[in-house]
Amino acid sequence: MSDGPFAAEPTDTREKIMHATFRALREYGYAGLSIQRIADEAGLSKSSCYHFYDGKDDLLLSFMEFMFGQFGTGFDIRFSDDPVEDLRLHVQLMVAGPMDEDIASEILEAVPGEVPPDAPIRENNALERGPLVEVRAQGVNEPAFRERFTEMDGMFRDTFAGIIERGIDEGVFREVDAIQVADMLVTIGMGTIFRGATATFDRDAAIAEAESYIQHRLLPDGAIQE
Amino acid sequence: MSDGPFAAEPTDTREKIMHATFRALREYGYAGLSIQRIADEAGLSKSSCYHFYDGKDDLLLSFMEFMFGQFGTGFDIRFSDDPVEDLRLHVQLMVAGPMDEDIASEILEAVPGEVPPDAPIRENNALERGPLVEVRAQGVNEPAFRERFTEMDGMFRDTFAGIIERGIDEGVFREVDAIQVADMLVTIGMGTIFRGATATFDRDAAIAEAESYIQHRLLPDGAIQE
Repeated sequence: MSDGPFAAEPTDTREKIMHATFRALREYGYAGLSIQRIADEAGLSKSSCYHFYDGKDDLLLSFMEFMFGQFGTGFDIRFSDDPVEDLRLHVQLMVAGPMDEDIASEILEAVPGEVPPDAPIRENNALERGPLVEVRAQGVNEPAFRERFTEMDGMFRDTFAGIIERGIDEGVFREVDAIQVADMLVTIGMGTIFRGATATFDRDAAIAEAESYIQHRLLPDGAIQE
Repeated sequence: MSDGPFAAEPTDTREKIMHATFRALREYGYAGLSIQRIADEAGLSKSSCYHFYDGKDDLLLSFMEFMFGQFGTGFDIRFSDDPVEDLRLHVQLMVAGPMDEDIASEILEAVPGEVPPDAPIRENNALERGPLVEVRAQGVNEPAFRERFTEMDGMFRDTFAGIIERGIDEGVFREVDAIQVADMLVTIGMGTIFRGATATFDRDAAIAEAESYIQHRLLPDGAIQE
């Protein structure tokens, strides 16, 4: 696994703190995370961190935003002529975590002209799944986290819905409730992330079955294809 | 929401500790959970708790087992003549948390003769979703938790796969990879639990779309039904 968007050198202090948070989360887990440890990882003083963030929660909410920040942008540039393939790839992007080489190269092969050379695909996909699950679990008790994750789910859903609506407009897909189907793809993605981070789980089989769902649910001849 | 399997009076000290754990989790969340608080809730001394459990992790693993313990049994008794309906109801059972009245009554209506009077349906379905997500998130760093949740996912998957295989044998379902489809239903269920506990989320729409998945993926005329 790569470091995703944390592979490049940080360009300012805020970014340095975000990179340090990623490393500290990976090393200590959510339970062992502290401003002190993040400061140590960043080579900064604790007070420097508090200059930018009110505390651990505030910092983590910014961290989530940083991780997902470019996701929408990353999505928009990557459309092929095949909406089934677009959906499958975007589900993969959602669940992949810091992009592993296999998925990155598959996506690069699938939509070669669409990825600008200065935006390596893994830069836009920083879902380190373990920390993501631990941080998201804070949403059980913390309304600010719930709000943020509601927004993020909505962002994923809107992206999927856009692809589905395009498929309907082009006559490739059936006339389904695009939002409901898109939301199911978010649920499948989140279920994949949740299970993958907390149990032994065959992610490739899940992606394959997500593709079957897309075909059977959206293609007019979905049932006949097999 | 009801207290699920924690509604009845505990019958021994172990069960008393399990009930107290449920209340303490709900009150303090995972982060605030301690043997002391569980002992206080149970009206026991800390040392009584340590007599049964090595510590918080050991106790929580037992708690998970207690919550899921009767799930398989609950499942086996509730089959109708319609495998689509069986799958939908079992997905609902998986995600429902301590059964709310609506779902309980729907299930009771759907398969009236199948529920023995001495086993009220909510007794078998104790997935309080917030604590479940918080405890499951421990699987990110704790192998013992990962193992337990891998087993639990397998239990759900096998139950779903059994229904699918029966549907195939009876000629109602297409010849699909039953395990792969069953595993997707677990992923959908876990995604529903994860999202529902950590964000604003329309669970009813998710259940409706899960049913669409089941119909389109498994029925030979799934694509033609709409």
